[in-house]
Amino acid sequence: MSMKQVIVVNTRLAMPTGKLAAQVAHASVAALFSADQASIQAWLNNGMPKIILRGKDDAELAKLHEQAITAKLPAQLIRDAGRTVLEAGTVTCLGIGPADAEAIDEITGELKLLR
Amino acid sequence: MSMKQVIVVNTRLAMPTGKLAAQVAHASVAALFSADQASIQAWLNNGMPKIILRGKDDAELAKLHEQAITAKLPAQLIRDAGRTVLEAGTVTCLGIGPADAEAIDEITGELKLLR
Repeated sequence: MSMKQVIVVNTRLAMPTGKLAAQVAHASVAALFSADQASIQAWLNNGMPKIILRGKDDAELAKLHEQAITAKLPAQLIRDAGRTVLEAGTVTCLGIGPADAEAIDEITGELKLLR
Repeated sequence: MSMKQVIVVNTRLAMPTGKLAAQVAHASVAALFSADQASIQAWLNNGMPKIILRGKDDAELAKLHEQAITAKLPAQLIRDAGRTVLEAGTVTCLGIGPADAEAIDEITGELKLLR
């Protein structure tokens, strides 16, 4: 079983690079703390692979989050505190995993990589 | 004592956004696992603030890492595995903290925010 973590970014927001990177890191840490210890350890031992994907908007991220929770995958939606660039409560990212790569791909497999 | 985490990015590499975000998240998680449990908990309770800063190059990140270690702050240099965009072993980011904000600022206080 190969473990990975996926972060889906709300590209509708067109966040500046530093803001986007901070939100991706929030999602990574938040999803990590939702995972069980064995999954975390397996993922760390494998070099903690993270894949950053393009999401369309709030609605898509919310839908994918629901699917991940239904599939019993660790998943966290990140909402911006609104102190800087964005309106408070805006969904910036969705973190899923660490979890089995194939189980995650069933949910996010159609999304494109964020370049 | 206000806790934060700082990620310094090697801007010399001019990484594409997705690559940069993944490296920042690596640094966040790696530095996190170097911190003590009380610091992690205090930082999580405070909304896990993360500041993303502009570093000049490999040499600057290595120097800041040494200063952080000397100051007994949790700190991790991230080297790229070289599977995708960059040459293997390239230093992409430096993560410092979660730790006391003032102690981190003594090391990275002169750096500019990554926008």
